[in-house]
Amino acid sequence: MGTGGSPTDPSAALGALVGEAQLSNRVRFVVELDRLKQVLRRTVVTDGTRRENSAEHSWHLAMMALVLADAADEPVDPLRVARLVLVHDIVEIDAGDTFVYDADGRETKAAREHAAADRLFGLLPDGEGDELRACWIEFEHGASAAARFARSLDRLQPLLLNYASAGQAWREHGITAEQVREVNSTIGDGSAALWELAQRVIDDSVTRGWLPETGR
Amino acid sequence: MGTGGSPTDPSAALGALVGEAQLSNRVRFVVELDRLKQVLRRTVVTDGTRRENSAEHSWHLAMMALVLADAADEPVDPLRVARLVLVHDIVEIDAGDTFVYDADGRETKAAREHAAADRLFGLLPDGEGDELRACWIEFEHGASAAARFARSLDRLQPLLLNYASAGQAWREHGITAEQVREVNSTIGDGSAALWELAQRVIDDSVTRGWLPETGR
Repeated sequence: MGTGGSPTDPSAALGALVGEAQLSNRVRFVVELDRLKQVLRRTVVTDGTRRENSAEHSWHLAMMALVLADAADEPVDPLRVARLVLVHDIVEIDAGDTFVYDADGRETKAAREHAAADRLFGLLPDGEGDELRACWIEFEHGASAAARFARSLDRLQPLLLNYASAGQAWREHGITAEQVREVNSTIGDGSAALWELAQRVIDDSVTRGWLPETGR
Repeated sequence: MGTGGSPTDPSAALGALVGEAQLSNRVRFVVELDRLKQVLRRTVVTDGTRRENSAEHSWHLAMMALVLADAADEPVDPLRVARLVLVHDIVEIDAGDTFVYDADGRETKAAREHAAADRLFGLLPDGEGDELRACWIEFEHGASAAARFARSLDRLQPLLLNYASAGQAWREHGITAEQVREVNSTIGDGSAALWELAQRVIDDSVTRGWLPETGR
């Protein structure tokens, strides 16, 4: 028996198997989401064997929301924070990940990501797409206590992975402690306790020789 | 300046940087969670280039909870379903992933996973570890409408990935449509609509020659 190859557009092929239009659109979106697993970040996973992708990063942040919510400066609902971080990187499916220390990339980031949000959230039935898009905007603007804390987690998590991998990504990209402190001080906008932890992580990384204080 | 290697126990090293005991334990747990990214499932991601890991799988399920909750037979809170799927595979950090079509592996699965739950959730302060462990048990037993729907998503998601990759994992492991229908019929315990979709996916996979109806 002949075996056909993969569908050229798997999300369209799967959507077409569903009779009902709303469910069909949701299934297309779900299949499209799979591509976030192919977006690589600069950070490496703790054992240093490979770069982290944005889907597993988002899961890690959602778990951090569940166990660290008490560390937020203002009271936050852990599950609302989890929803924000689950959604916050979806635009990278089209726009790619922008390295937090890449000043040029960060200038064009907003335009690329808004176009991505139009296409991706536009796959969903109207109200539902709007709701997820609103989560992304809330996160991007730090427009609530939940969003500010979600942003703290998004900055703290790569610090933890960098520490666990002896500063591997920092060393590969020639990052200094000065840069790390500047970019990550926003952790303090959502949580004084986590910014205190972050500073200890940075200081100890300098002491251990994984992160130079200033450029060479 | 000398550069030290990675900490031999990154979660302990990071936990030790935190003064306060409760936060220290939570940070240890968070760092330990990173290892779920190294647990490989049999399913491949949609473009077929590599196997999916359990962390990114969990993120995918959580997003499915947010966009497909309406398809549940009984009303469910999307965020409660999301919490269950975020937590449901954490025990695999110690116990590994058990292939759903591996009858021998499934016999020893419960014992391996309970030991894993003791160690992993035991890293957290008491009440918090108990709460996450209860989520895992609720999922495992399908003990609520949210858990039954979460289990439906956990079965539907690999079907979607298998379809998108022209049945790659099915073909690699010699799986038949008969087996797929038997193992996945529990999708119907949480959602008649998603089980209807799953059957269409299975039938079309047979038609396209990706999945033999019975063994050779």
